[in-house]
Amino acid sequence: MRAEGEKIQRLSIMRNVQIQLASRPLGEPVVDNFKTIELEVPDLQEGQVLVRHHYLSLDPYMRGRMNEGRSYAQPQPLNEVMIGGTVGVVEASRHPRYQVGDRVVGMGGWQLYSIVDGEGHALHKVDDSVIPLSAYLGPVGMPGVTAWVGLNEIIAPREAETVVVSAASGAVGSVVGQLAKARGCRVVGIAGGPDKCDYVTRTLGFDACIDHKIHGDLKSMSTALKAACPGGIDGYFENVGGTILDAVMLRMNAFGRIAVCGMIAGYNGEPLPMAHPSLILVSRLKVQGFIVSEHMHLWSSALKELGAMVATGRLKYRESISQGLASAPEAFLGLLKGKNFGKQLVKLT
Amino acid sequence: MRAEGEKIQRLSIMRNVQIQLASRPLGEPVVDNFKTIELEVPDLQEGQVLVRHHYLSLDPYMRGRMNEGRSYAQPQPLNEVMIGGTVGVVEASRHPRYQVGDRVVGMGGWQLYSIVDGEGHALHKVDDSVIPLSAYLGPVGMPGVTAWVGLNEIIAPREAETVVVSAASGAVGSVVGQLAKARGCRVVGIAGGPDKCDYVTRTLGFDACIDHKIHGDLKSMSTALKAACPGGIDGYFENVGGTILDAVMLRMNAFGRIAVCGMIAGYNGEPLPMAHPSLILVSRLKVQGFIVSEHMHLWSSALKELGAMVATGRLKYRESISQGLASAPEAFLGLLKGKNFGKQLVKLT
Repeated sequence: MRAEGEKIQRLSIMRNVQIQLASRPLGEPVVDNFKTIELEVPDLQEGQVLVRHHYLSLDPYMRGRMNEGRSYAQPQPLNEVMIGGTVGVVEASRHPRYQVGDRVVGMGGWQLYSIVDGEGHALHKVDDSVIPLSAYLGPVGMPGVTAWVGLNEIIAPREAETVVVSAASGAVGSVVGQLAKARGCRVVGIAGGPDKCDYVTRTLGFDACIDHKIHGDLKSMSTALKAACPGGIDGYFENVGGTILDAVMLRMNAFGRIAVCGMIAGYNGEPLPMAHPSLILVSRLKVQGFIVSEHMHLWSSALKELGAMVATGRLKYRESISQGLASAPEAFLGLLKGKNFGKQLVKLT
Repeated sequence: MRAEGEKIQRLSIMRNVQIQLASRPLGEPVVDNFKTIELEVPDLQEGQVLVRHHYLSLDPYMRGRMNEGRSYAQPQPLNEVMIGGTVGVVEASRHPRYQVGDRVVGMGGWQLYSIVDGEGHALHKVDDSVIPLSAYLGPVGMPGVTAWVGLNEIIAPREAETVVVSAASGAVGSVVGQLAKARGCRVVGIAGGPDKCDYVTRTLGFDACIDHKIHGDLKSMSTALKAACPGGIDGYFENVGGTILDAVMLRMNAFGRIAVCGMIAGYNGEPLPMAHPSLILVSRLKVQGFIVSEHMHLWSSALKELGAMVATGRLKYRESISQGLASAPEAFLGLLKGKNFGKQLVKLT
């Protein structure tokens, strides 16, 4: 019977494909910074779970990890699989908590399969009967919770205040604005191009959206913000940095709050000064950076609200889905340039 | 008896001298921006109090008021007495709450006398039996409360954390550091010149003090901060702005707090950018501006602690006293350049 057992085991041998970081970018990253590796999926050890990834999430934070320098997290090691959030289905399990067919979210990385220790909190079971599986990487996942934490914990908007959000059509910005609308705020987005701006106002329901491709310099953006925010700006959710931040700061009301979630404009090492930090004093602003993974105690409250809003259609979202793991590097580089429209995903099945 | 009454009233006629803002500065202010006026002290109306000022307080915030542009307060009007905190003695009173001889703190302005409505909160009686009168313009007055509020409300240091304060020998900075020491912190000052640095460490008891005249550029200041703060910086009390802020930000620990109280380096309109605002995200900093007059509910707690510390010698302070109202403009211009050593006062008696 031993021979038959070995035969069954051999049937389970599968090939994994993964994308690794091959080299660190000098300035703007390029596809050659990545490399593709094929390897065998090893046999499961006791307590392990094998997940087949359906979607890979691409997010701006990954750009920071590609650098060697100090940031809020360890750099992505060279010649290891790129870090990334994934959602998928359990293919095999040697842990009692997980059954074949379970839908799970985790940090599986840029690869087709991952093997995960079933103990601990590396995997979270999700239900895709009402909420689509991919949404757990977007509005009901890390980007949604990021929006929720920055808005509620730092901006803490009161009814009728004005909240501005940059990258407004994106995975985070779109949720920030819709949550702020639900809290009774005037909400103004900033996005690149007429299609994104139309989507932000018509589909997402923001009160206004400013096209930063039209209002590219400080004076023009500041004038546009003045028109869109006649009562000034009370809260700003920052995803971009640079000129847009400078322009917003000129329009902030006294006691305004700025949640700094990202500064994608400076991710390639360009100098990105803040022109007038004295406005922090003059307008008694609070400017605060945050990282969602450091607010774990809020995730369940956030996901409860976000999940209910998505399930009932009150929270809208949009996805840019590229097909196949091999498309991930190009899709990621496009994300850094704002070529995506909504949450950037890679479909792996 | 009417004639006699008139005679008594005439004896009370006094000449006031006041300094007004004559013109707004173009860049650096000059003495010609001020003018001196002599005028008669009018008779007291029912409910009014006449105060003879003993000391006038000179403070950096006055520079902002000299400009026309938007700031956190109304500009100082032209051809009116310069705004300023004063401490003095009641000369005459037609309000039951005040008696001749009462010691009072108020915003009497750059003049020898002021007439104040006894109702409301324009005057505060103080006791100079233990605490010298002048201290109510320094450690037991607005500068002291400024230090207390910024340290406790924004930096909120925990024991063994490292707190850095710029303008460390000044009226505000000296209190910040001594309060932080009392809370069990490692405290590092930044001041200009060896005399001030010696005073900060030897007399005030800071753990270290960095001379910004020696460490004038970003790299040198950053290196000096690294040496003085081997465990990084958890809290920074900002009075200066510019290069010093940039250097401190490079050394801030995760979750560091920066209380922005002043940015004197930019008060004449020089560009004063923040070099790396992305550090707010990378180090998850909170950078918050504040104005002490907007935290009135904290004044009594603050003054209670500060008064007790001064009365018992646990809070040390130093004054630069210039003699006579006519010396106020020069003394003020010197303050803006750091020529004062400790709290800048003008003695008016």
